[in-house]
Amino acid sequence: MLPSPNQVLLIRTHDKPGLIHTVTGALLAEKANILANHEFVDPIEGMFFMRTEFSGPNQKQSLLATLGKLLPGSHMELRTLERPKIVIFATKEGHCLGDILLRQRFGELDVSIEAVVANHPDLGSLVQDFHIPFFHIPTQENQREEQESQVLKTLSHLPFDYLVLAKYMRILSPKFVETFPLRIINIHHSFLPAFIGANPYAQAYERGVKLIGATAHFVTESLDEGPILAQDVIAVDHTFTKEKLMLNGKDIEKVVLARALRIVFEHRVIVWKNKTIIFG
Amino acid sequence: MLPSPNQVLLIRTHDKPGLIHTVTGALLAEKANILANHEFVDPIEGMFFMRTEFSGPNQKQSLLATLGKLLPGSHMELRTLERPKIVIFATKEGHCLGDILLRQRFGELDVSIEAVVANHPDLGSLVQDFHIPFFHIPTQENQREEQESQVLKTLSHLPFDYLVLAKYMRILSPKFVETFPLRIINIHHSFLPAFIGANPYAQAYERGVKLIGATAHFVTESLDEGPILAQDVIAVDHTFTKEKLMLNGKDIEKVVLARALRIVFEHRVIVWKNKTIIFG
Amino acid sequence: MLPSPNQVLLIRTHDKPGLIHTVTGALLAEKANILANHEFVDPIEGMFFMRTEFSGPNQKQSLLATLGKLLPGSHMELRTLERPKIVIFATKEGHCLGDILLRQRFGELDVSIEAVVANHPDLGSLVQDFHIPFFHIPTQENQREEQESQVLKTLSHLPFDYLVLAKYMRILSPKFVETFPLRIINIHHSFLPAFIGANPYAQAYERGVKLIGATAHFVTESLDEGPILAQDVIAVDHTFTKEKLMLNGKDIEKVVLARALRIVFEHRVIVWKNKTIIFG
Amino acid sequence: MLPSPNQVLLIRTHDKPGLIHTVTGALLAEKANILANHEFVDPIEGMFFMRTEFSGPNQKQSLLATLGKLLPGSHMELRTLERPKIVIFATKEGHCLGDILLRQRFGELDVSIEAVVANHPDLGSLVQDFHIPFFHIPTQENQREEQESQVLKTLSHLPFDYLVLAKYMRILSPKFVETFPLRIINIHHSFLPAFIGANPYAQAYERGVKLIGATAHFVTESLDEGPILAQDVIAVDHTFTKEKLMLNGKDIEKVVLARALRIVFEHRVIVWKNKTIIFG
Repeated sequence: MLPSPNQVLLIRTHDKPGLIHTVTGALLAEKANILANHEFVDPIEGMFFMRTEFSGPNQKQSLLATLGKLLPGSHMELRTLERPKIVIFATKEGHCLGDILLRQRFGELDVSIEAVVANHPDLGSLVQDFHIPFFHIPTQENQREEQESQVLKTLSHLPFDYLVLAKYMRILSPKFVETFPLRIINIHHSFLPAFIGANPYAQAYERGVKLIGATAHFVTESLDEGPILAQDVIAVDHTFTKEKLMLNGKDIEKVVLARALRIVFEHRVIVWKNKTIIFG
Repeated sequence: MLPSPNQVLLIRTHDKPGLIHTVTGALLAEKANILANHEFVDPIEGMFFMRTEFSGPNQKQSLLATLGKLLPGSHMELRTLERPKIVIFATKEGHCLGDILLRQRFGELDVSIEAVVANHPDLGSLVQDFHIPFFHIPTQENQREEQESQVLKTLSHLPFDYLVLAKYMRILSPKFVETFPLRIINIHHSFLPAFIGANPYAQAYERGVKLIGATAHFVTESLDEGPILAQDVIAVDHTFTKEKLMLNGKDIEKVVLARALRIVFEHRVIVWKNKTIIFG
Repeated sequence: MLPSPNQVLLIRTHDKPGLIHTVTGALLAEKANILANHEFVDPIEGMFFMRTEFSGPNQKQSLLATLGKLLPGSHMELRTLERPKIVIFATKEGHCLGDILLRQRFGELDVSIEAVVANHPDLGSLVQDFHIPFFHIPTQENQREEQESQVLKTLSHLPFDYLVLAKYMRILSPKFVETFPLRIINIHHSFLPAFIGANPYAQAYERGVKLIGATAHFVTESLDEGPILAQDVIAVDHTFTKEKLMLNGKDIEKVVLARALRIVFEHRVIVWKNKTIIFG
Repeated sequence: MLPSPNQVLLIRTHDKPGLIHTVTGALLAEKANILANHEFVDPIEGMFFMRTEFSGPNQKQSLLATLGKLLPGSHMELRTLERPKIVIFATKEGHCLGDILLRQRFGELDVSIEAVVANHPDLGSLVQDFHIPFFHIPTQENQREEQESQVLKTLSHLPFDYLVLAKYMRILSPKFVETFPLRIINIHHSFLPAFIGANPYAQAYERGVKLIGATAHFVTESLDEGPILAQDVIAVDHTFTKEKLMLNGKDIEKVVLARALRIVFEHRVIVWKNKTIIFG
């Protein structure tokens, strides 16, 4: 449960002595009450990363102005810990979508689901049973651009912070992806970078692996190559057909996606050089 | 997907030479086509366990009669692999219930959910959204007997093969449990035998464990001591409050319960001396 | 502990009705006492795989002759469960080698280590402390052929069933590999097929994965592409430098390699189409 | 690899605003260069925990004096990150002992092993092969006190920071344990609190669990109830006899113990109320 008025300060800057002292001093001066504080220094890259969660008077402008002067050249974000708004993209498989719907319903994920967009009609009845708007925008061969225009048009009427690809089996164009940097989260059904691309379970079957996995990541222009948010695996053996791999894989897909959503929604992630720093 | 006409023969007997040959011979004589075959010999107990899945003419009586003569004194069951009927018991938490409802809806669990019985009204709207009968039978202090009578009366009108306790937070009486031997499956929110009884997450928090778990088991008269069907754990650390333990534990509870249901529904389990032999 | 006189029959053949009955009948006729029996039918490939462990009179020729007539065209092996002889190949890292030495010493692996061959001298003192012959056969740029000749010459004086590559950081030539089909076991420090080839930890670091793994496999002509025997992973995060990944990865490398050796030594593996069927 | 001159400041105190700012200010004033910093606020207990690793001039007295004035009533420790000295206690099983010996030899654990004390002679030859002093101090029925006196006498001639119980199958007396608070580390062969006491594998076998585990913990007066440092599990099934449980359990025992030693040696642990805060 997120206490809604709390704020999160995320800092990414070149490391130098005194950074924590400087930042905590600025927060104290603003009467902020620090609730949780995490830092990470990457000694190889010489970089400093910090996440501070605090309560207190909401003086965003003033705090950012102060910190901007104290830490020139730093990348800083100040986020409010309030319920994020999402739009979910899906295709035919309902396990990830359904799982998010259930978590939302029971308060496991403190999120507002604004709509579900799908390129197939199959999941419409489920979404409707959860009383959430459903937009069926079909895809046709060689018409990705057109379909994406329609999707963008639909999105333009919806408030949202993130797009969640819950087994959306279409590749988004680089142009679409660029429009929402670090705001699109995907679940891929393999332990990336193994089995990039189509049919990872078929690939896993052919290779005869003894583990299958799932990977949640931010979507970037390179397919399945965005910053990784969460991964997990389960053991399998020679008795697993492609269908059984797929069936069992669903259990980790939905759990890994939910884990990723939670850390993103709680502003626990800093991305740098295609990698994630995640403050638990 | 279970091919519905297939059958499963489960045998439990004292080990002696030639058992597999004898059983497979009897099956061949009945024109059965063996699809999968598993045996386990417990050398310490001198026991033999076998599961054979086969297609072919359904001559149950004839086959059991033949085997009964060939293997006198053995425990044998012949089950048909058809969609089982279940009644789900729940209380207030909806993650396990909801997970089963979703899996049923999308064919991940080939099961017929006849009804949901709950001792609190909270989950009624979810169940109704899934178009399944919901019976609210409240519990009151010192009135377990009366409530169980009502539950039994409700059950008497429902066809079912198994009762699934999906976070049903009431202890069933020995009398109730005895009525449905090896037909009641429970999910307990700890890696049993650690943290038996109430509030396992509070116990885990106090003890400062670095793993939390979930255990699915058949219900017997001894609380949380029935034969274990499935278990799993996830890593936790000192930052996990009781609430966070509970929240994260839900992910394994629902997955472990689903795993247990699948092996029970597929007749992959033989129970012996409060332990399970599970043929993958 | 393997009871040394037991035997293992491994069969790989096209599936047809009555196979188990036929094989167990032949074993009974030879007075074999079946201790453990496993079958697997691959319904997609139409293949049947069987492993039978039995005690009784050692009439190998007679049994294989009988089965050869009953199951023409089948692939059959009859192995004795006796302590296998191995030669270990290593380079500079001692954790996998040392782990095998310890397991052998304490009876965790029932194996006879005939010698250690290394292309660097560093591990010589450890091996000598374990009272095992150590052969230092250095590698030089562009002289793989020559070095392999020396290795082969050394091996020609040693009895061995398997070659174990315990972090041997040289690629064996196809010619060398072909000489010992399904007799060379390697441990690769990634969850294959991710991070094939050199420096998998550096690759994992660059990619920012949240899991690292290890894979034990039979060596074939294609680098890191042989049939997989065992795999495992551990969780990592952004605080893991390449060095820390490597350090923590060692724990799974040695455990995964040992697991693979155990199943190979117990003749639990049937290879087919570059995949392994492993009978637990 | 621990850069030896670095220091670690560990603080445990009641939470109040400005603590991080105060501590980092004091460190800056002493010209300390902070390399890694971790804090944890327990909101339920109202407690603040901090670990700071820093390089710079070693002015221990001055720094502790300053902080003592700034944070009266706090628990503070200032440790130097130098190679710790340990004495290992063992009985007959060599897998944990051998694993530590190997890790020390190859630099995986930066530790100095001063001696091995065992109540059985069996492991003497292994220890001698590693060129480390071995003291055989046998135990006899009803003579624990006497044996412990001898052990203490032996220890009195050895420099050591920690005692590591590497499958030492004797219960130490409360008096002995009190002598070395938070300096004795034990590996217990179960996922505590399940299967406390003797023969956990036999207990696990009887219960029919599907997971077995290992737990490393600080030793306190209550058997197997000290603060937990690390835990892990592996999957098992009905085919696991007690012996096979024991054999497979060894793999997690040694890995879990090594993980615990690493975090203790790097001063990453703060104990509070029988629980551990572990700063990764």
